[in-house]
Amino acid sequence: MSSQRKNGHRRIRLWKPKRTSPGAAPGMITPAEDAMVPRILVTTYDSVFIQELSFTDLQALMVHLDQHPNRINWVELQGFGDRRLLEQFCAAFGIHRLEMEDVINNYQRPKLEDYDDHLFVVTRLLRKNGDDQIRNDQFALFLKQNLVITFQETYDENFDPVRVRLRSGKGHLRSSYADYLTYALLDCAVDHYFPLLEIYGEKLDSLEDELFGKPNRDCLHRIQSLKRELILVRRTVFAERDKVNDMLRTASDLIGDQTKIYLRDTYDHTIQVMDLVESYKEIIASLMEIYLSSVSFRLNQVMKVLAIISTIFIPLTFIVGVYGMNFSSTDPSTGAFLPMNMPELYSPYGYTGVMVFMLVLVIVQLLIFWRKGWLDKS
Amino acid sequence: MSSQRKNGHRRIRLWKPKRTSPGAAPGMITPAEDAMVPRILVTTYDSVFIQELSFTDLQALMVHLDQHPNRINWVELQGFGDRRLLEQFCAAFGIHRLEMEDVINNYQRPKLEDYDDHLFVVTRLLRKNGDDQIRNDQFALFLKQNLVITFQETYDENFDPVRVRLRSGKGHLRSSYADYLTYALLDCAVDHYFPLLEIYGEKLDSLEDELFGKPNRDCLHRIQSLKRELILVRRTVFAERDKVNDMLRTASDLIGDQTKIYLRDTYDHTIQVMDLVESYKEIIASLMEIYLSSVSFRLNQVMKVLAIISTIFIPLTFIVGVYGMNFSSTDPSTGAFLPMNMPELYSPYGYTGVMVFMLVLVIVQLLIFWRKGWLDKS
Amino acid sequence: MSSQRKNGHRRIRLWKPKRTSPGAAPGMITPAEDAMVPRILVTTYDSVFIQELSFTDLQALMVHLDQHPNRINWVELQGFGDRRLLEQFCAAFGIHRLEMEDVINNYQRPKLEDYDDHLFVVTRLLRKNGDDQIRNDQFALFLKQNLVITFQETYDENFDPVRVRLRSGKGHLRSSYADYLTYALLDCAVDHYFPLLEIYGEKLDSLEDELFGKPNRDCLHRIQSLKRELILVRRTVFAERDKVNDMLRTASDLIGDQTKIYLRDTYDHTIQVMDLVESYKEIIASLMEIYLSSVSFRLNQVMKVLAIISTIFIPLTFIVGVYGMNFSSTDPSTGAFLPMNMPELYSPYGYTGVMVFMLVLVIVQLLIFWRKGWLDKS
Amino acid sequence: MSSQRKNGHRRIRLWKPKRTSPGAAPGMITPAEDAMVPRILVTTYDSVFIQELSFTDLQALMVHLDQHPNRINWVELQGFGDRRLLEQFCAAFGIHRLEMEDVINNYQRPKLEDYDDHLFVVTRLLRKNGDDQIRNDQFALFLKQNLVITFQETYDENFDPVRVRLRSGKGHLRSSYADYLTYALLDCAVDHYFPLLEIYGEKLDSLEDELFGKPNRDCLHRIQSLKRELILVRRTVFAERDKVNDMLRTASDLIGDQTKIYLRDTYDHTIQVMDLVESYKEIIASLMEIYLSSVSFRLNQVMKVLAIISTIFIPLTFIVGVYGMNFSSTDPSTGAFLPMNMPELYSPYGYTGVMVFMLVLVIVQLLIFWRKGWLDKS
Amino acid sequence: MSSQRKNGHRRIRLWKPKRTSPGAAPGMITPAEDAMVPRILVTTYDSVFIQELSFTDLQALMVHLDQHPNRINWVELQGFGDRRLLEQFCAAFGIHRLEMEDVINNYQRPKLEDYDDHLFVVTRLLRKNGDDQIRNDQFALFLKQNLVITFQETYDENFDPVRVRLRSGKGHLRSSYADYLTYALLDCAVDHYFPLLEIYGEKLDSLEDELFGKPNRDCLHRIQSLKRELILVRRTVFAERDKVNDMLRTASDLIGDQTKIYLRDTYDHTIQVMDLVESYKEIIASLMEIYLSSVSFRLNQVMKVLAIISTIFIPLTFIVGVYGMNFSSTDPSTGAFLPMNMPELYSPYGYTGVMVFMLVLVIVQLLIFWRKGWLDKS
Repeated sequence: MSSQRKNGHRRIRLWKPKRTSPGAAPGMITPAEDAMVPRILVTTYDSVFIQELSFTDLQALMVHLDQHPNRINWVELQGFGDRRLLEQFCAAFGIHRLEMEDVINNYQRPKLEDYDDHLFVVTRLLRKNGDDQIRNDQFALFLKQNLVITFQETYDENFDPVRVRLRSGKGHLRSSYADYLTYALLDCAVDHYFPLLEIYGEKLDSLEDELFGKPNRDCLHRIQSLKRELILVRRTVFAERDKVNDMLRTASDLIGDQTKIYLRDTYDHTIQVMDLVESYKEIIASLMEIYLSSVSFRLNQVMKVLAIISTIFIPLTFIVGVYGMNFSSTDPSTGAFLPMNMPELYSPYGYTGVMVFMLVLVIVQLLIFWRKGWLDKS
Repeated sequence: MSSQRKNGHRRIRLWKPKRTSPGAAPGMITPAEDAMVPRILVTTYDSVFIQELSFTDLQALMVHLDQHPNRINWVELQGFGDRRLLEQFCAAFGIHRLEMEDVINNYQRPKLEDYDDHLFVVTRLLRKNGDDQIRNDQFALFLKQNLVITFQETYDENFDPVRVRLRSGKGHLRSSYADYLTYALLDCAVDHYFPLLEIYGEKLDSLEDELFGKPNRDCLHRIQSLKRELILVRRTVFAERDKVNDMLRTASDLIGDQTKIYLRDTYDHTIQVMDLVESYKEIIASLMEIYLSSVSFRLNQVMKVLAIISTIFIPLTFIVGVYGMNFSSTDPSTGAFLPMNMPELYSPYGYTGVMVFMLVLVIVQLLIFWRKGWLDKS
Repeated sequence: MSSQRKNGHRRIRLWKPKRTSPGAAPGMITPAEDAMVPRILVTTYDSVFIQELSFTDLQALMVHLDQHPNRINWVELQGFGDRRLLEQFCAAFGIHRLEMEDVINNYQRPKLEDYDDHLFVVTRLLRKNGDDQIRNDQFALFLKQNLVITFQETYDENFDPVRVRLRSGKGHLRSSYADYLTYALLDCAVDHYFPLLEIYGEKLDSLEDELFGKPNRDCLHRIQSLKRELILVRRTVFAERDKVNDMLRTASDLIGDQTKIYLRDTYDHTIQVMDLVESYKEIIASLMEIYLSSVSFRLNQVMKVLAIISTIFIPLTFIVGVYGMNFSSTDPSTGAFLPMNMPELYSPYGYTGVMVFMLVLVIVQLLIFWRKGWLDKS
Repeated sequence: MSSQRKNGHRRIRLWKPKRTSPGAAPGMITPAEDAMVPRILVTTYDSVFIQELSFTDLQALMVHLDQHPNRINWVELQGFGDRRLLEQFCAAFGIHRLEMEDVINNYQRPKLEDYDDHLFVVTRLLRKNGDDQIRNDQFALFLKQNLVITFQETYDENFDPVRVRLRSGKGHLRSSYADYLTYALLDCAVDHYFPLLEIYGEKLDSLEDELFGKPNRDCLHRIQSLKRELILVRRTVFAERDKVNDMLRTASDLIGDQTKIYLRDTYDHTIQVMDLVESYKEIIASLMEIYLSSVSFRLNQVMKVLAIISTIFIPLTFIVGVYGMNFSSTDPSTGAFLPMNMPELYSPYGYTGVMVFMLVLVIVQLLIFWRKGWLDKS
Repeated sequence: MSSQRKNGHRRIRLWKPKRTSPGAAPGMITPAEDAMVPRILVTTYDSVFIQELSFTDLQALMVHLDQHPNRINWVELQGFGDRRLLEQFCAAFGIHRLEMEDVINNYQRPKLEDYDDHLFVVTRLLRKNGDDQIRNDQFALFLKQNLVITFQETYDENFDPVRVRLRSGKGHLRSSYADYLTYALLDCAVDHYFPLLEIYGEKLDSLEDELFGKPNRDCLHRIQSLKRELILVRRTVFAERDKVNDMLRTASDLIGDQTKIYLRDTYDHTIQVMDLVESYKEIIASLMEIYLSSVSFRLNQVMKVLAIISTIFIPLTFIVGVYGMNFSSTDPSTGAFLPMNMPELYSPYGYTGVMVFMLVLVIVQLLIFWRKGWLDKS
């Protein structure tokens, strides 16, 4: 999701270019070359029963599903490295080839597609790695009667909290329908925004402190990186909000009224995230302004010191220059005394007088600067 | 609501992170560790009767409520430190666990949730402490037939004016239904924006004066702090406006037409607050521009002084340098007279002539500066 | 509407804080302490009859109104200094206490409230005083069958043109219903925006001229003042536009189709005002940019002069410094001749040579500056 | 449409103040004092017949119109200098006084007013004169059954191309109804935007070239003038677009479906113009930024030269100053030799050594500057 | 699509002025003078049959089409150099003259026009040439029952991928109706945005690197060029999105539900492109800010060096100036010893003392600079 820059900063990528060239046929199911070997996990449950299995063969999976027609089945496909398997999935579960293309073409916007017999939901999972790298995973979900199929590119256990809740049997999860499982998974994805925003909030605060304290060029780098990340987060959460809203308004029977109450909660969360992202965007804009003002401010500081030093010493240097002139008190040819030529040089207190005069000048100048506020710190 | 910065300025927090981790079950009623011990206040009234009681036991409360089925009961729960009690509230009054989670998860947006038998209203109370700290409290309210339940995290007597009006028996409050009490509480919350905006208005005015007078780096701090606070106020009042609008448009029987006339008044107030916040936002943006222009302006001032001093003295210093040169009027080896080598030095009026020439030069330069406007103050 | 600043500039107020504290009962009719003594003017007319009376007693007014049930009655209340009278108005004309609170709470947005038997219209009158102060008066109006009641805080004769038209009996005014009088009054209020905008237009033009000519710090003041005033005008005219639109779309019988044709004309005027205010806002933003660029430009000018002077004289000063060095042509201890130590000083044309060299140097530098365009004016 | 500024630049006017004072009666038909003497042109045509006449008398015109009830009549009134004639027009053709006021009040927004028996269309004609002055003429049109009445303030032959097409009899114009003539006239007005935008495009391009080349203060003038003109064009074309859209959606019989196909083409053109104006607005904003960056850039250039010269010569001047000190190698009172006092001055290669040292210093400094990139052009 | 600038940079054109003058008759089919000689390609296919032919004569084409009434016919006209042929097309296929004018008037916005018996679609093809020039071709399409007619100005084989897919017979293309071919062609056009955006993304990244590294004036050029191109792309893709949306919502039978599923995919792509273009726009705005801050930053660097050198050497130069003064220790006339006149000059360690003092001064100054952070790199 990011590329290394020369100066050690990383830059996130705002998207991943499509692998297909313009004009290619739609619905091409061509996994990436470095796609992971797929694995299939199945959780079959109802309020009194739970079984977790792992399959490598689609046929065995179908047999298993047939055995539990009245239980909820959560089928997870992780890794897209087997094109034949993906096509079998299409055939077995009635997935449109365009949908499967979206599943493996790993940079869709969050969206809901609403079909007669199933819902197709694309979700993005944004979160931070341990090394402060943003991860931007895609998670696709098919909701059918009693069946939830989820697709993930990697084996990441993003949804372990949901799995734990399923196993524990507490709460509504086990006693609800497949739509509630869908809600639980989406809610988990939206919940990941909050720790992310907390990180951004802290970064913005420490940047602000630094900008008011000792700003440096690296701050600008970090402002720009934060801006880029917030552009990505903002774009994603807007689409996410629209998606959840679509789910709330769908006429499909697949999502029950009871679950819609919970989805409304998720919707509230997306609104909260959007509010915060917008606020952060405004704050980042003003951090940029503060940075620019800091650059100007430091220039002012430097110029003030230069101006004070110059303004004090340039006149003094002129004065000592005057008494460094070689006007002669005697005419070299006639030897006549020239009384107008710098008599100060021969006065007993000439030197002392000049030094005292210069001292007074410096004091007067400092007083002027002090009154003009040039000697203040800010 | 705010954190202390190194430079003594405080920074408000734009939100409070959720305590639950991503994927946690929804509707978890887990109070914060430092939550206050709850207390229950009940005000039971109709146009001729008023009684204020305090309960510690929910069962006793329910008995009391059963005794006054035709009176208005205002139940206040202050402090969320007892999870068992909160769950009892859910059970006793038919509050959804998601709603109770919103009540204690202390950073919801203002919103209205409209159910068949009750309305759930979340409101934010923004106001300033004595020490210029913004307080951002949440206030949740359930409106049922003849029953208003309010939830507050602290014992703050934010609604004392309403209590006083209830006790006095004047106005419509005692003779109206529970919806009017709801209106009175919400209106009180919205009213708190006005003194807040008055404070911001005064701050903006004094900042503007300072920026036009003697701007310093601290102004930037204050601009940024105001910006942050206005971001918070703006976000909150937008949601508040939407909420009041939802209440005006609700089809629920719980809010009567008579009360909607009053809510329209509250709606007008939220619009007025929004108008002002938008205006303040524009003014703050221009204060930033004025600050930046002031920084540039001061740089100009400093550079002008430097330029005047330098431009006057650098040529003078050159001239006295000329007459400090040691060109000899006699050839050291031959002793021959070298008449071309600085005869001025031996002229009787050489020194006087140079001094007069330099004086004239200074006067000419000052005239040029004066005509160029460099000697003007601005 | 404005406060005096230290620097002699006035600053308009964007609003007037409410007098009531948060949580106070709604519909409180408490006039300001300095409210004027009320006076009641009544104009009763139809196409053949007109009578202008002045009342101090509401009862006498009611008797008068009863005598002219089929004529149009325009009742004007000017000055809100008598609370009892205001309450009598509420009772006599069926005015809701919230409306009366809006009437005297002198900072409402323009709005239309549409009730079964009357319309309540709040209008703001923005115009300039002779001393360039903006005045922002409120004007509230009740329209009932054959009756128009208007409320103004002061005795200002803002609507004299309408009165004159009424008296003259020309035009539609006398032969139309109360809705047309309402239109005439509102149209008069909207018309006041045009001279205001003309003043702003002229101010912007003269500011622009000054910024391109000789900008000074005072321009920034004036830009900021204009910005503030336009923020106020913009906010007001937006609400005014919405209000007139509401009147065009009202289903109330109180406004006839014929009058709506005229209101559409007023609506066009509010749109025109909004267009102009938006344009002025854009122009003011670019004036700010021009001001900032002017500050930079003047800095450039100053720096260029400094740079030219310094760049010419610093090398010259170095050269004369070289020939001011005291390297001795004789060894003081041995008296030996040291031919390498500054033989130029003893060359017959040393001084002349150095002077010519420096002259050439200056000419070369001036040529370089001229080619670089530093000697250009801009 | 523009006023002369002191610096020779012209400034366009964004509007023309209304002549009537606030509160004046609506529908006042008072021509401007300098209005032109009116002339009436009539073109009567059908697919096989065309006749162009000129009238001075309305009665004769009415007789002519009665003679051709089944032909299309295009009545043009040019010049509004005769109030009586305008009022006769109102009476003869059923024109509302408010409409006639809009016709002569020469600064309306483009708009459509849709009445039962006629449509009233106001259009603005924006184009450039030969001397680069923008002209902003108003053109009002009444469409009735078989009758098109157009009003123009001047005798300008803006619509000659349409007249030529009418005479030639080619195309649809002669064989279509009055709505098609209306379309042809409006389309001609909208077409005028394209050459205007072409001029702006060229101006923007040449400004950009100049800003990247040798920017000067005059560029800022031209940016500001262009901005003002685009503000005017934008405002006008937005209203024009709305107007054409209203015509497309009108339920009036006066515009047939066939003509709406053509109006859709005009609508497309207004959208294209708006797109371009928006693009130009963005480009102008970035030209302003480029100008500001150029000012900073030139300051940098100046400062770099100053810094290089100063940094090279200031240390050198110090060094030669050192050897200009008068420390004596003999004590004047005792005549004792003081070997520590500047023995360099008496060393045989002292002068040469100092000169070489300074040369090395200069070379080292130049190397440092070269490596820092200060000697680069940009 | 672009013009060469003096400095070697190219500037894209935002539009191509219309060739017709204001007021010209609509629907004029006048090809450009340099239009290419037209060629007609026909592809006739169904699921089992495919034939590609080339015609020069419209009559032969019509005969061919009559022979394959139940097959899909894709007629391509490339090159508009023959006005007679274009008019024959209008007649033969029932194309409105306004549509044909749009086809050859080569700068339409993307749009859908929805007629009873056909759809008219205008699409823009944006892509990069090998020499980094943007190409902005227009592509018009008529969809009728079993017939797709496409118009292109040049012989460019933009749609070769679709042709290849047709020939191969794989996928849905051959077995679907004319609407699917339309979809395939439009999708191919939209797909071209992705490589374009990839190029912009890389350019932005490398610009950012350069701005943080060694920014120069050329960067500003490239920022401005990118801005211009993105303005064009943004405008185009917005219209494209609206067009695809119109196709999704059309009630026309010509586009089947099955194809709409595919068009929704295309719609998603336009949304994705818009999202990215918006993100790029924001990034470009911040690149401008970074550029401006870099200019300021470099000025700071230069000024800091100047200030350090000046502040160190100016006082030193003053000191050596002091000891260059010629105050005499003997009165030239009396020969009296003047002990107050610069006794340092005759002190044995005077010179050493001064040198040491200056060294200490330099060290102290460097320490101060170091503590102020002036010696840091940033």
